[in-house]
Amino acid sequence: MKELTSLGLKSSAMGLWILDQTLLPQKEEWIHVRNPESMVVVIQKLQVRGAPLIGVAAALSLAHFALSNRSVEELRAAAEILRQARPTAVNLMNALDRMLVVIADGGDAEQMVAQAEALFLEDVELCRRIAKNGAALVQDGDAILTHCNTGGLATAGDGTALGVIKEAHRQGKKISVWVDETRPLLQGGRLTTWELQRANIPYTLITDSMAAMLMAQGRVQSVMVGSDRIAVNGDFANKIGTYSLAISAHYHRVSFYVAAPDTTIDRSCMTGQEIPIEQRAPQEVRGAQGSFGTVEWAPVHTQVYNPSFDVTPAHLVSRWILDSGVFDRADIEAGAFGKGH
Amino acid sequence: MKELTSLGLKSSAMGLWILDQTLLPQKEEWIHVRNPESMVVVIQKLQVRGAPLIGVAAALSLAHFALSNRSVEELRAAAEILRQARPTAVNLMNALDRMLVVIADGGDAEQMVAQAEALFLEDVELCRRIAKNGAALVQDGDAILTHCNTGGLATAGDGTALGVIKEAHRQGKKISVWVDETRPLLQGGRLTTWELQRANIPYTLITDSMAAMLMAQGRVQSVMVGSDRIAVNGDFANKIGTYSLAISAHYHRVSFYVAAPDTTIDRSCMTGQEIPIEQRAPQEVRGAQGSFGTVEWAPVHTQVYNPSFDVTPAHLVSRWILDSGVFDRADIEAGAFGKGH
Repeated sequence: MKELTSLGLKSSAMGLWILDQTLLPQKEEWIHVRNPESMVVVIQKLQVRGAPLIGVAAALSLAHFALSNRSVEELRAAAEILRQARPTAVNLMNALDRMLVVIADGGDAEQMVAQAEALFLEDVELCRRIAKNGAALVQDGDAILTHCNTGGLATAGDGTALGVIKEAHRQGKKISVWVDETRPLLQGGRLTTWELQRANIPYTLITDSMAAMLMAQGRVQSVMVGSDRIAVNGDFANKIGTYSLAISAHYHRVSFYVAAPDTTIDRSCMTGQEIPIEQRAPQEVRGAQGSFGTVEWAPVHTQVYNPSFDVTPAHLVSRWILDSGVFDRADIEAGAFGKGH
Repeated sequence: MKELTSLGLKSSAMGLWILDQTLLPQKEEWIHVRNPESMVVVIQKLQVRGAPLIGVAAALSLAHFALSNRSVEELRAAAEILRQARPTAVNLMNALDRMLVVIADGGDAEQMVAQAEALFLEDVELCRRIAKNGAALVQDGDAILTHCNTGGLATAGDGTALGVIKEAHRQGKKISVWVDETRPLLQGGRLTTWELQRANIPYTLITDSMAAMLMAQGRVQSVMVGSDRIAVNGDFANKIGTYSLAISAHYHRVSFYVAAPDTTIDRSCMTGQEIPIEQRAPQEVRGAQGSFGTVEWAPVHTQVYNPSFDVTPAHLVSRWILDSGVFDRADIEAGAFGKGH
């Protein structure tokens, strides 16, 4: 079994380990994920997160499970519970479909391991291509606003939107980053800050409500976000708050980019209206929880609405940055996202 | 000396007391404010907040100070430090100007007390008129989205934007309220929820980033906010995040209302660009603080941008709801906000 290591995941003959992202940046603790049931819990608690990384992690947990002499029925059942872990991210479903093909073809455990490892390495390569494609859109001196975390903690590689930012920095472009804190789960405030600090890229943390004011002041040259699912017409789902940013960027004529692997496109999903949106627990909005502590500031029993994602319509997007290239609305209208692989 | 009581302030011969809003909703603790220096601290810590209430509280602290045999110089110096306590709210300056007129006219302590009490009672009456004017714009069944806290904790009376909402509810209109949590200081999540719960008005708490999605779903009939300063051209400053809401409302053709007393208009301020915007401490954005606890989730030394307010241009506003009436853009272009009192 190969040794695979990314910022948030380690897989080897020693087992599968996940960096607990709910504890960052205060603590760096690794969880030994012993079976698919545990992986479901780890995914649902967002200890592992980021659409591409979830897919890779689920596939690897299925591969490790296969190594302990499981029947085809057990493997299929395990794939099914993993598939249900989070409803919005399509990468999870794609990764598991690839594993199920191996099972259907009568593959053994070694072949399942090889397939999961291939998914990991493919994701690294996808990130590299996305970063290269996207960095060409970044100008020297740009201030880029980003939302949630789309970096090495969200993928097996260097990230999607954050991967583009890192690549532009590596190319010597003097960029800076506005980091949305990304309530309620603070992936921006906890994770993107942590990654940018490690990468020595200048950044400034803001609350989600400040982005529009910065755009009005001319202090944002582009918005760069990831995606959990892209429809055939270019609409896409991403972390709650993305839609609001897209409207503000549109209003201020600021470029708005989505960066994601091709596998994020759901070719069975015609428009954003068909994307299911996961609702999460009310306590996430009533307060904040992490290794920094657990606080609840709202009155007890406060009723809460807590969608994890929102859908941004294609007409608010300037460019879709994929591993296969950079697309504009004309490309999509010509069917770029409708063809099979 | 009169006994004056509002949700957040008590004044009588026993002294001046402020309900510590930083501790709500977990604790209801009153602070005895013994002199203007203490009031400055109480204002800057946001233990008392809301543009109208700050003005009334500052005037009352000056009146109580005058009762302890102060010279004109001492009173003027005290007024000056109070004026500097928060730079954006114009009501504070207006209230102190009214007190300074009494001093300049050779008024004694009793006359200063009478003036401060008059400011309190006027604010109660202003709220009543704003509520009545605004409630006419609310339809039975409306879901109204609000930001920050603009209720009985922000004024001497029933509130501005929240006062309108309460009045519509009192009139028997079946309304519900979407409450923006209002990062970083969570006035929505802590204070507006607390007030709406007391008033038995149905509400749902959301993060600031969710408002646009609700509008896209047709689940918001109007946005109702307060203001800290209104320019002659109708631009206005309000809690950070207001501008983003205004852009989203405009995009979705949702009515966007500003409710405030006439005294919020700064007739020396021609446009929003002239309104000074207060910057606050970085730890407010690095985490959250209150009687619920103090947590810091961002990496230490994270650089932060933390403006307390933003400015919304007049063309994004549907109506300005003042005590003197309801105004539209045509009224303002005709000079409604340019005339003297």
